[in-house]
Amino acid sequence: MATIRTAILGATGYAAKELIRLLLGHPHAEITVLTTRSTDVPWAGDVHPVFRGRLDLRLENLDAASIAARADCVFSCLPHAASAEAVVELLAAGLRVIDLSADYRLNDPAVYKKWYEHDHPDPTRLAETVYGLPELYRQAIPRAQLVANPGCYPTSAILPLAPLLRERAVLPAGIIIDSKSGVSGAGRTPKAHLHFPECNEAVSAYGVGSHRHTPEIDQVLSDFADVQTEVIFTPHLIPMDRGILTTAYATLSQDVDAAGLLAVLRRQYAHEPFVRVVDGLPSTKDVVGTNCCDMTVRVVRGRAVVVSAIDNLVKGAAGAAVQNFNLMYDLDETTALR
Amino acid sequence: MATIRTAILGATGYAAKELIRLLLGHPHAEITVLTTRSTDVPWAGDVHPVFRGRLDLRLENLDAASIAARADCVFSCLPHAASAEAVVELLAAGLRVIDLSADYRLNDPAVYKKWYEHDHPDPTRLAETVYGLPELYRQAIPRAQLVANPGCYPTSAILPLAPLLRERAVLPAGIIIDSKSGVSGAGRTPKAHLHFPECNEAVSAYGVGSHRHTPEIDQVLSDFADVQTEVIFTPHLIPMDRGILTTAYATLSQDVDAAGLLAVLRRQYAHEPFVRVVDGLPSTKDVVGTNCCDMTVRVVRGRAVVVSAIDNLVKGAAGAAVQNFNLMYDLDETTALR
Amino acid sequence: MATIRTAILGATGYAAKELIRLLLGHPHAEITVLTTRSTDVPWAGDVHPVFRGRLDLRLENLDAASIAARADCVFSCLPHAASAEAVVELLAAGLRVIDLSADYRLNDPAVYKKWYEHDHPDPTRLAETVYGLPELYRQAIPRAQLVANPGCYPTSAILPLAPLLRERAVLPAGIIIDSKSGVSGAGRTPKAHLHFPECNEAVSAYGVGSHRHTPEIDQVLSDFADVQTEVIFTPHLIPMDRGILTTAYATLSQDVDAAGLLAVLRRQYAHEPFVRVVDGLPSTKDVVGTNCCDMTVRVVRGRAVVVSAIDNLVKGAAGAAVQNFNLMYDLDETTALR
Amino acid sequence: MATIRTAILGATGYAAKELIRLLLGHPHAEITVLTTRSTDVPWAGDVHPVFRGRLDLRLENLDAASIAARADCVFSCLPHAASAEAVVELLAAGLRVIDLSADYRLNDPAVYKKWYEHDHPDPTRLAETVYGLPELYRQAIPRAQLVANPGCYPTSAILPLAPLLRERAVLPAGIIIDSKSGVSGAGRTPKAHLHFPECNEAVSAYGVGSHRHTPEIDQVLSDFADVQTEVIFTPHLIPMDRGILTTAYATLSQDVDAAGLLAVLRRQYAHEPFVRVVDGLPSTKDVVGTNCCDMTVRVVRGRAVVVSAIDNLVKGAAGAAVQNFNLMYDLDETTALR
Repeated sequence: MATIRTAILGATGYAAKELIRLLLGHPHAEITVLTTRSTDVPWAGDVHPVFRGRLDLRLENLDAASIAARADCVFSCLPHAASAEAVVELLAAGLRVIDLSADYRLNDPAVYKKWYEHDHPDPTRLAETVYGLPELYRQAIPRAQLVANPGCYPTSAILPLAPLLRERAVLPAGIIIDSKSGVSGAGRTPKAHLHFPECNEAVSAYGVGSHRHTPEIDQVLSDFADVQTEVIFTPHLIPMDRGILTTAYATLSQDVDAAGLLAVLRRQYAHEPFVRVVDGLPSTKDVVGTNCCDMTVRVVRGRAVVVSAIDNLVKGAAGAAVQNFNLMYDLDETTALR
Repeated sequence: MATIRTAILGATGYAAKELIRLLLGHPHAEITVLTTRSTDVPWAGDVHPVFRGRLDLRLENLDAASIAARADCVFSCLPHAASAEAVVELLAAGLRVIDLSADYRLNDPAVYKKWYEHDHPDPTRLAETVYGLPELYRQAIPRAQLVANPGCYPTSAILPLAPLLRERAVLPAGIIIDSKSGVSGAGRTPKAHLHFPECNEAVSAYGVGSHRHTPEIDQVLSDFADVQTEVIFTPHLIPMDRGILTTAYATLSQDVDAAGLLAVLRRQYAHEPFVRVVDGLPSTKDVVGTNCCDMTVRVVRGRAVVVSAIDNLVKGAAGAAVQNFNLMYDLDETTALR
Repeated sequence: MATIRTAILGATGYAAKELIRLLLGHPHAEITVLTTRSTDVPWAGDVHPVFRGRLDLRLENLDAASIAARADCVFSCLPHAASAEAVVELLAAGLRVIDLSADYRLNDPAVYKKWYEHDHPDPTRLAETVYGLPELYRQAIPRAQLVANPGCYPTSAILPLAPLLRERAVLPAGIIIDSKSGVSGAGRTPKAHLHFPECNEAVSAYGVGSHRHTPEIDQVLSDFADVQTEVIFTPHLIPMDRGILTTAYATLSQDVDAAGLLAVLRRQYAHEPFVRVVDGLPSTKDVVGTNCCDMTVRVVRGRAVVVSAIDNLVKGAAGAAVQNFNLMYDLDETTALR
Repeated sequence: MATIRTAILGATGYAAKELIRLLLGHPHAEITVLTTRSTDVPWAGDVHPVFRGRLDLRLENLDAASIAARADCVFSCLPHAASAEAVVELLAAGLRVIDLSADYRLNDPAVYKKWYEHDHPDPTRLAETVYGLPELYRQAIPRAQLVANPGCYPTSAILPLAPLLRERAVLPAGIIIDSKSGVSGAGRTPKAHLHFPECNEAVSAYGVGSHRHTPEIDQVLSDFADVQTEVIFTPHLIPMDRGILTTAYATLSQDVDAAGLLAVLRRQYAHEPFVRVVDGLPSTKDVVGTNCCDMTVRVVRGRAVVVSAIDNLVKGAAGAAVQNFNLMYDLDETTALR
């Protein structure tokens, strides 16, 4: 089959780096454009030395028309707001887009404004954009021109909780999601609290009650619960490069034991290539570098305690993007992901 | 004043190592005995090379009579069950004891048996033994012959939650405690899951619903809530040497905001040398190597979200033991701890 | 083309794990047998949870005849001595073998005995076995029935030093090789000094003057220098999972500057897919997960200071093995390695 | 005895933080002034949260006259050049100064200019300033008004090598010093290569042939060798907070074995409280948090292989400064350091 030409916007960060790694191994994709918003336009091998000798491409500034001439599909790793601005142009130029930013994940511009503190640049497209979590919204992805790639924390929390809510095994009220993430999730820009001797050998919570992944989790869980959820989400920074472990607590809605809850998850994900419902407690060690989400559930004193693990840069970002890409181009969903 | 002669039982582990460090800096304490249960009785400097040249003492096997002749106060770092067996003899020999094991923390032998899965070796002493958390039970410590040193996780969870329960600011039902601990908390015995390449760059939960610190937390929180609590406690292993960060979730019992909750904590701990109620989110980085517990509280969607940080080996073990020791011998409570 | 059936002996360790990862992504290889010397014969997914759902194979004890019926090529990840014993049988059964142990790397049984402290189990085969470092001995690999896969430290040291010695740019006498390795290089068996809280946040040297990779380095460098070298090799343990950085010091034999030395390396490796001669100082970060060796050289006060970086489990073990496999079966050398 | 009032210049960095920690535990020192060059003058507890509640002092901008009114002794943690400018004023104001910068370590302004690339601001004082390594230059320290505190790498390299050179056990020519340092040695300013996900799980060399500690090492070693040395010094960055391990290689000058070399070191350091000559191989783990330098030496193929370990922030900076302070004020040299 024909090779699909791909562009990556905002190619200097960690999600873009992972995306390059995956696309270099993809038999039907070719990377033809890498962009940066900086006036400095280095070679790919200088930005990401790991690709030296493998990707002879110079970064460039974004020009939608020029990209449209050289690419079929665009992965946007731009920050929110900047991404939507680019996406509007790219879609108009006829390109298909997988947006790794948060811009098209929420359906409601008002919710976006509340959490992101500015008006959405392209509000009318929100309600119609597919949320690119294939395990839950696969059908809508193949025909989409634009796919909103899910956030890393939401992926880790939604995958185990959504089936339990849909089956009414747990109550939608009072769900607590306590997540632990490696530092790559905080981006590549040097900051005081991410300076090695500051965040090494340390754990801390951040964004308590204010993290922008909260409404994204609520939106999807509400979709499965059929009532509005109001999750309490607390992310933590862990001294490691990659991986998210999410421990979530939900009140049981019926007299069900762990085996019953595991059965719900196993029914839901029996045929999913990237979800593994396990008996033991998942570790991020077993998913790092893969597109898998490992999960289990226990019952403790009347609560479901759900534990899930993903690689924040793969299933939580670039891997999910390639999974969406595969679906959009009618390829085996696991291509380049195993 | 006279020097107090101290013995450390089970001197090969990490809590004992930290205790040696603190006692070597204590102006009124002398280490005269170190024991091990192994037939191998090395020099202190071979077990803990950091003390080479500072502690010219050979480990020995436990002999209560011999210890009674050479020490005034004993710190037991033995595992549970083994500790109680030794404590019985040592108390009979007239020694004062600070027990860092779990053996005398619970009041009820039946609860002990349920969680530790064997009969308590010395059940009659349980109800009368003081729980050595000075910030909450200081009055009983000075006159005690035996002090049960608190567990590391319980210390991190109880200190912020107990005042909120006593003031009826939060409900005793449905408290969730999600803790993250450095690996030294798992002890010094090499195990597959603690092998460096296994637990480095990884996070996992363990002991979900079954960790033995659960009844200890419940016992103390119930004491302050005046009703039985049933906390859901989930510990996690974090790739770092030391530190515990606890994030706890409790339902608000009244219309109170974060400022109100912080006021409760500040009133409780205004004069405590080792508790710091902070406005920002605590990090284990700021307490490692100290006997401090940093804590704060936020309100998120009707829940109190409490975050606390301690060094599991200091405030969570050896530091608390020295704090108890200071109180037992009428010394300034902060001696050797600042 | 036909699929090549592969067996992995000693499949529970880290090199085997990496080999499984690479072979699962190899379009022309299939894993048909995994062995262990333990009487416990678990499923692959229980030994290496990362492969759960991808490798439905149970480990078994080694039986050469049985393997010969089900495999074409065997990768041995057994320890030295055990490996040679197995190899003798497997070769007799007609299998081709890539031996990741040290057993067939040295040419001289006397040298083997001196460093490994036991007689070689199969001494006559030593002199004729090819040393599987394709960049230096590629020609002999395709026709070999048995390939000795190089050691991790030797690979990192030999690749930059051999060309400099062959070109007589540096003197063979007094070469110093100071290497820093991640902890996976020490194997998967839990040991006191590899217990997380012992080796985390610590650096130490080990095997000073006695590491068994010394004669292997000497043998190859002597081959290129045409005189016997006697390198001083010091390995160090670094608190990270993977990666080796080698800094080597050699006396210049002529009036040459860094540019001249770099030119030697670039001439040697111009067409090598897995060697990158770089201007900056290599970091293990840029090679981890790849089969690349990054290298550079500087001149400091009359010495060549060579710095190289590899992933000890890829180019230092499993990646090199797959590279040899590709050559042995006339496949593109980079198959499954990019 | 009277309390000595101390000021710390450049109090926001890691060496200053460690100095504060040590001085807070010093029975005869009081911290009265902390300065910063920033216009932002925060409270000590905001810059270093670990000291919250223990140090109620606001940072201020440097004013020599004002400091002279409130302090007796000044520790300068300013960068080079800035430090000398301040020192000139402080000495003129009658203060005693311990300079942790590199400004007064070298004797020769021409050497300073060559390596630091600017004229020395106070060249005439260089030759007369004592190099504050008490183990080698103790006699000159008590009467000094200004002490140049040694660099971290030089301390680790000089302590084991100087006695071997003085005793003519090794040759002064061709000494190679390969050092591995934790990241705190690189300072507290966030930089791209010190961003957690960049330097975690990575080792790299830096400053090959150009590190400014080179002339400092040469100066002291030459002093003991009685001829000019030209060491080759290569520092490496290790993913850990603290600690330096130095492995140095020197040619034997006579027929001496490891026991003979160890005897030289043991004679030299028999009465030193902070040097431990050990039989095994030192690990940074055993010195972190202490003012000790652990060292050993082996003979490998005609070379002395020296291995030493220090905590870069203690014996390599703040601890040595307090040791000098103790000597300058006629206190027990180990005060606050044990």
